[in-house]
Amino acid sequence: MTSKNYTSRVFPLETMAVPGGTETILRGGRHLFTLLPEAFAGVRRIGVIGWGPQGRAQALNLRDSLVDTDITVAVGLRPGSASAADARTHGFTEESGTLGDWLTVAAESDLVILLISDAALVAHHQEIFATLKPRAVIGLSHGFLLGHLRTAGNDFPDGHGVIAVCPKGMGNSVRRLYEQGAQINGAGINSSFAVHADPDGRATDLALGWSVALGSPYTFRTTLESEYRSDIVGERAILLGAVHGIVESLYTRYRLAGDDPVTAYEKSCENVTGPIARTISRAGLLAVREGLDSAGREVFDCAYTATYAPARELVAEIYDEVADGTELRSVVLAERRLGARPMSEIGRSPMWAAGTEVRARRAARELPVEPFTAGVFTATMIAQIDEFAERSHPWSEIVNESVIEAVDSLLPYMHARDVAYMVDNCSRTARLGARRWGPRFQSAYEQIAYPASELPANESLMRAFDTHPVHEALSAAAKLRPSVDISVS
Amino acid sequence: MTSKNYTSRVFPLETMAVPGGTETILRGGRHLFTLLPEAFAGVRRIGVIGWGPQGRAQALNLRDSLVDTDITVAVGLRPGSASAADARTHGFTEESGTLGDWLTVAAESDLVILLISDAALVAHHQEIFATLKPRAVIGLSHGFLLGHLRTAGNDFPDGHGVIAVCPKGMGNSVRRLYEQGAQINGAGINSSFAVHADPDGRATDLALGWSVALGSPYTFRTTLESEYRSDIVGERAILLGAVHGIVESLYTRYRLAGDDPVTAYEKSCENVTGPIARTISRAGLLAVREGLDSAGREVFDCAYTATYAPARELVAEIYDEVADGTELRSVVLAERRLGARPMSEIGRSPMWAAGTEVRARRAARELPVEPFTAGVFTATMIAQIDEFAERSHPWSEIVNESVIEAVDSLLPYMHARDVAYMVDNCSRTARLGARRWGPRFQSAYEQIAYPASELPANESLMRAFDTHPVHEALSAAAKLRPSVDISVS
Repeated sequence: MTSKNYTSRVFPLETMAVPGGTETILRGGRHLFTLLPEAFAGVRRIGVIGWGPQGRAQALNLRDSLVDTDITVAVGLRPGSASAADARTHGFTEESGTLGDWLTVAAESDLVILLISDAALVAHHQEIFATLKPRAVIGLSHGFLLGHLRTAGNDFPDGHGVIAVCPKGMGNSVRRLYEQGAQINGAGINSSFAVHADPDGRATDLALGWSVALGSPYTFRTTLESEYRSDIVGERAILLGAVHGIVESLYTRYRLAGDDPVTAYEKSCENVTGPIARTISRAGLLAVREGLDSAGREVFDCAYTATYAPARELVAEIYDEVADGTELRSVVLAERRLGARPMSEIGRSPMWAAGTEVRARRAARELPVEPFTAGVFTATMIAQIDEFAERSHPWSEIVNESVIEAVDSLLPYMHARDVAYMVDNCSRTARLGARRWGPRFQSAYEQIAYPASELPANESLMRAFDTHPVHEALSAAAKLRPSVDISVS
Repeated sequence: MTSKNYTSRVFPLETMAVPGGTETILRGGRHLFTLLPEAFAGVRRIGVIGWGPQGRAQALNLRDSLVDTDITVAVGLRPGSASAADARTHGFTEESGTLGDWLTVAAESDLVILLISDAALVAHHQEIFATLKPRAVIGLSHGFLLGHLRTAGNDFPDGHGVIAVCPKGMGNSVRRLYEQGAQINGAGINSSFAVHADPDGRATDLALGWSVALGSPYTFRTTLESEYRSDIVGERAILLGAVHGIVESLYTRYRLAGDDPVTAYEKSCENVTGPIARTISRAGLLAVREGLDSAGREVFDCAYTATYAPARELVAEIYDEVADGTELRSVVLAERRLGARPMSEIGRSPMWAAGTEVRARRAARELPVEPFTAGVFTATMIAQIDEFAERSHPWSEIVNESVIEAVDSLLPYMHARDVAYMVDNCSRTARLGARRWGPRFQSAYEQIAYPASELPANESLMRAFDTHPVHEALSAAAKLRPSVDISVS
């Protein structure tokens, strides 16, 4: 699906062993900042369009990384944007020529990074394209716009480079871990990059430079299409939608088995965002099961066995809908409806009320991994990994989009707040997707997986988990980043 | 959206008062059978293609109604069809020339009624069209094929009449109530009809004749598009998908409040399919609330108030997806996936286990209407009605597709079996739709509606229910059918 191997005129690339082959990657770090002027050759001005979490993080990281160069980072906002005040607080100002109208900033920049919302991209990309100066490069941080252009029968404008650097984590993590990089070289969020159009041969090094400047521990190659699919599917599955369905269904299950609300919350939501995520982040997927006693392993295996098939069925359905464009049409239809009727919130169910108390008593004791919850969560993660592998995504994309983004970025934030807060504060595309698919996981697990968990575990499925190639890929990826504290206060 | 008024050269039409105007309808009954030869002028042979529940019911009703004419009803099946034995048992045989290969039967018939599955229609409609003799009329029982042809950029073949008669009930009900018609003239399932192409002016009377022969108590006019939308939306909402979501979420709610499984089942599933459906069928929607004591009404009002908004939001979303074609694309994608992996069943959740015991003790006592359940169910029904009214469907279509089909056909069958059985035994299009949308209702109700039901009722919403135009439309429709026993043993 993608050309995973490539060359750079600027950066020292490495070869990473992945199941069935190798991928060419760039290990990041601040020692590479001296190479940035060469990577950004021909770019005097970078325009970051938009000031959401991703826009803010990228504008700040780029400015900090390029402080010793003569490259200017400017922020472009739509007229009357409520974000202008926050951008000024962070030192982007009209006076210094680093804050302005989005079309003006786009017109003046050599690299125009589009970080506005998907809905704004759909509505305004043609206006922005029309203002670009000759040879200006279009930068994206995910493939959504390509999906939209294809659905509408359009394409990017000729004569412009089109590149993407896609951090595999939320904007808040991109900034927070970058700041840790001042002490721990290489701390950050991994990114994929894609070269969609390269009229003058600059695109690969420009994308790699952008990724290094964001603080990516390592950067791997993908295509816009592969990125788009894995990104949109991932947020509907293990990154967001499935997590919500998992914790809702498990909470109800523990409550019905007699647990009080706080205990049920600890065994479900708190367990996923806390001990399970931490264990995977520190020691990988096998460690979750290996940390259990033998009774716990039996429960884990039964839960894993019962969950895998319905999880895989759902991930395959999501993948089909995303690849076909159906999911994107649904998002556009929903955006239109939301004009008339605001999106309802989902954090008012009884479960979330227990969360406050659970968070308050965290200091008192360390929560153990709950075997049933761990089996359900791990099986869902493996189902997504298997679907992505079957669809020929590069292994770096698979592990970043299925495991690392979850345990190093999203779950720590969910742990600090709660899952409902996260779902209601993500991009609209992600929110709408989580709202469509979270309930599907919830129902399928309540109606199919949990009743089936009374049956004995399937040994061949457990052997497949034990010997799964993802463990090798994940461990290769883990070697490329320094150990950092992922917790969020 | 539709021309609700029209004329007939054969049948005595009536005018029915509906909110804001009138609709022209045909009241059915066996006294009209003498007019059938005139309505079927030019038709010597009717080919019913397919022997699912709808194919069987229509072939049998048509043959019985046309027994005194020289019109032959033949059944066409795909080669090697497993249904041939059952068709022979019902008297359709190769020897008598009333059973044969579907393409042969289609080629020999003057009216070709396509009652094969949606997936088979998608795969084989072009072959069937190619065999039609000149001037043969194409008959449909819902608008799915039009939706598919539009999505694929195709149309029906020129020179052929295209009509639809769409019974607003399951095939089993179409047959069972027709049989009651021998004692109680006019018993049956209401139908809509549509004339999509009418090259020689025969179409309206042919469609009306077909409907009379099926035993429709009354027949109203729609368009294929309007029928398609309301049919597909309805089965995803109050007819099937929403019912499943409602009973799952209510069962959990009652269980969590301390009820044992049997009581929780009686208050949720059993209540909807039993006393609530019966009350609406016999006395209309207001009667559900009026039958409660004042404490019960308060509970009903709080549940209704809390449910209406999330229900309306979901029905609007379903309607958008169906009208846009997105839902249909999802069905096609799912059919493709099902080639590799069978659809999982949904009737294994703990709730259904309680159903057996509940059904066993039915005789012992009459179950009262549960106010909370009634408020949730009624609000969902009204949400669908309001969405259909806003989208300008004819009132006959609205009440048949939102109320009458539910309480006179589907819910009595769900009562005799259970909701999961029904969901897993409907058409694939309906099953897939219920599986997509049922969980959305479940989650929205658990997370949004039920927590909001702790708040006081919204008086203006309850006034709107009290004075809703649907009550007038429903009572006008009720006058057009004799009182029959809808229970299924």
